[in-house]
Amino acid sequence: MNNELVNTATFSYAKSQALFDRANKVIPNGIYGHFNPVSYKPAGTYPHYCERAHGARFWDVDGNEYIDYMCAYGPMILGYGNAVVDEAFQKQVALADTCTLTSPVMIDLAEYLVEMIPAADWAYFAKNGADATNLAVLIARAATGRSKIIAISNGYHGSTPWMLAKGRAGVLESDHTNVIRIPWNDVPALEAALDAHTGDVAAFISSPYHHPAFVDNEMPADGYWNSVHTLLKRHDVVSICDDVRAGFRIDMRGSNEYFGYTPDLICYCKAIANGYPISALVGADHLKEAAGAIFQTGSFWFSAGPMAAALACLKELKRTDAPTRILSTGKKVFDGLVDIARGYGRELKVTGMPSMPYLRTVEDDGIAFHQALCGECTRRGLFLTSHHNLFVSAAHTDEDVQRTFEIFDDALKALT
Amino acid sequence: MNNELVNTATFSYAKSQALFDRANKVIPNGIYGHFNPVSYKPAGTYPHYCERAHGARFWDVDGNEYIDYMCAYGPMILGYGNAVVDEAFQKQVALADTCTLTSPVMIDLAEYLVEMIPAADWAYFAKNGADATNLAVLIARAATGRSKIIAISNGYHGSTPWMLAKGRAGVLESDHTNVIRIPWNDVPALEAALDAHTGDVAAFISSPYHHPAFVDNEMPADGYWNSVHTLLKRHDVVSICDDVRAGFRIDMRGSNEYFGYTPDLICYCKAIANGYPISALVGADHLKEAAGAIFQTGSFWFSAGPMAAALACLKELKRTDAPTRILSTGKKVFDGLVDIARGYGRELKVTGMPSMPYLRTVEDDGIAFHQALCGECTRRGLFLTSHHNLFVSAAHTDEDVQRTFEIFDDALKALT
Repeated sequence: MNNELVNTATFSYAKSQALFDRANKVIPNGIYGHFNPVSYKPAGTYPHYCERAHGARFWDVDGNEYIDYMCAYGPMILGYGNAVVDEAFQKQVALADTCTLTSPVMIDLAEYLVEMIPAADWAYFAKNGADATNLAVLIARAATGRSKIIAISNGYHGSTPWMLAKGRAGVLESDHTNVIRIPWNDVPALEAALDAHTGDVAAFISSPYHHPAFVDNEMPADGYWNSVHTLLKRHDVVSICDDVRAGFRIDMRGSNEYFGYTPDLICYCKAIANGYPISALVGADHLKEAAGAIFQTGSFWFSAGPMAAALACLKELKRTDAPTRILSTGKKVFDGLVDIARGYGRELKVTGMPSMPYLRTVEDDGIAFHQALCGECTRRGLFLTSHHNLFVSAAHTDEDVQRTFEIFDDALKALT
Repeated sequence: MNNELVNTATFSYAKSQALFDRANKVIPNGIYGHFNPVSYKPAGTYPHYCERAHGARFWDVDGNEYIDYMCAYGPMILGYGNAVVDEAFQKQVALADTCTLTSPVMIDLAEYLVEMIPAADWAYFAKNGADATNLAVLIARAATGRSKIIAISNGYHGSTPWMLAKGRAGVLESDHTNVIRIPWNDVPALEAALDAHTGDVAAFISSPYHHPAFVDNEMPADGYWNSVHTLLKRHDVVSICDDVRAGFRIDMRGSNEYFGYTPDLICYCKAIANGYPISALVGADHLKEAAGAIFQTGSFWFSAGPMAAALACLKELKRTDAPTRILSTGKKVFDGLVDIARGYGRELKVTGMPSMPYLRTVEDDGIAFHQALCGECTRRGLFLTSHHNLFVSAAHTDEDVQRTFEIFDDALKALT
């Protein structure tokens, strides 16, 4: 690697770093959670702070411009500053946003989801993705009178303690009392868990396909979802689809439709309102009474602005057949990257759906080369993380794709 | 009660009711959580949906105008549509809101809180009030390696299962394994709980004064907080102040300062950004390492718009000495209501701080008269709930106060 070439050709992050030093004094870790830069390696190759964003691009505080394949970790499905969604939000907020009463737009949004999503007979709104997954679990417990939840090992459903890995700071043994983890695509393991806890399993929670961080993503095996639902029905267990991450990037009717199954509950968040804060749980009629029996609420759960934004976002996604277009853009981008890498003797592996693929370089000696590659891309204006699935939006243009290929080629050249 | 007079003089809710009937088909309970109209009695006396809001007033979908003493259950501390906060929000959102990187405004906001609040050495931001209380508990457990949480009976810290009352639908016995409830103002009970669980209590969580729903609110007894903190220090237990509801309506430095004590952690939400969705946890330096060790995150926790709104809101509250003004307005309003009621031979009881007082009519035979009174006020344009503390904002004008008195007098007349 020619360090001199890399250093002159690439971005510097002086202002980002200075801000991060200030942040460290008043914020734990400077930046926490999934935005914590400790995940971005090699150290020093990524910016920390954004100045502005538009379409599929953002500009950091040092003035560097990026084509963004993270889309704010999913929310920005129509791109930054989408005029249709922003206008709907602003128009509603000019009337009323957070108020003592809710707004009729809440009904419009619920009706739209129920009309569009075959599995949905009703909708419930909150703020975080974890609000939706926790709502789902509480409703399953209220409906069944049972305690246990079966989840996939390494499956992510938010940072509530029962969903976090055992041993994480602050998480108690007892937080996991009612959680049974089984491997992905393992029907016999599901059957064994259901048999071992007959009459005490309230729900099975899973994303429609398996998209953990740090490892290849996995599709359901042929017949998997059918076998799963045969077992769940036999044991009267509630099926929860966590579509927080994949929602509206595969199928507007629910990602489960693409994979050919019907859950009892579906959780949405991220892309539902193009960045405005709202999450949703939708469900089948037979769980509506239980959904009405539980008590769940939040200070801003009834704010009308994000509901208007969600309605406008969903209509725009549907009108433009966005999932099909985003899947197609993703395929073009990542097929292209695979071809370019091959020219440099590197094998890329792309897993998961093309609208949110997990990308890695196949190397015998671990992740270091892939981290260096993503870092060199980012330092040239192509923002790629090395540890998390990427996200494609409807705002990625042909010009963005061409520029993506150019930068990727340059980054590989710098590492040759 | 002269029903004819009441019916002709008061509002009708035909459009609200029609919308609610539509909502019931696609939303559990039509409206759920703390906005669920089942709390509003007598049935039929309250509107359900808001059309627009401005200052201290809102207009329902039937065109009825209200002076609002709920302030969206607390958030609207500067009034609806506050120009200073809305401009700060819009200016930030025009640049970047939800993005792949966070914004420098996050640092500005953390620094501002640390500067203003004596107990704060750092800040952590989320969306719901319950995110902040759950963060506090997790950090206390990470710091101490202990499990148990002591809380006040009937104290509300969000709708997470461990905080909900036992027996609520979906809540498990095991959700309460690590929660010990003691009465408010009961130092011996705290001492007994600490002694019974020596070495296993991570935190004590409480609002700065006791403000449950449905019953009179209670101030700390003389010396209460001092005795509490002597005990907590002796047992190395983390002190968590849940200032989600009272925050910035008593003292900008933290409501704890008004009551003369220093907690280790303070939770904020509601009024922090005049209705834009953000919550915050601030804490002492000795817990910063534990706060950095936990993993907590959410899809919209890094959105810059609400952070800019919070910064503008806090500056405006401080610049205008809003807590003092709101306390004074509250005192004027509720002293006035007490006087007016006395003229009709009714005794009102006002408890809690005047900026968010709990109001009831003292009656031997229960809450029915007070419910009728609040209903008759609301049906004349003075929005008062009968079961929850009310909220006063900085936008309540002298004209609003005078009109409040007129409507209250009319409502009492109608019930005579």
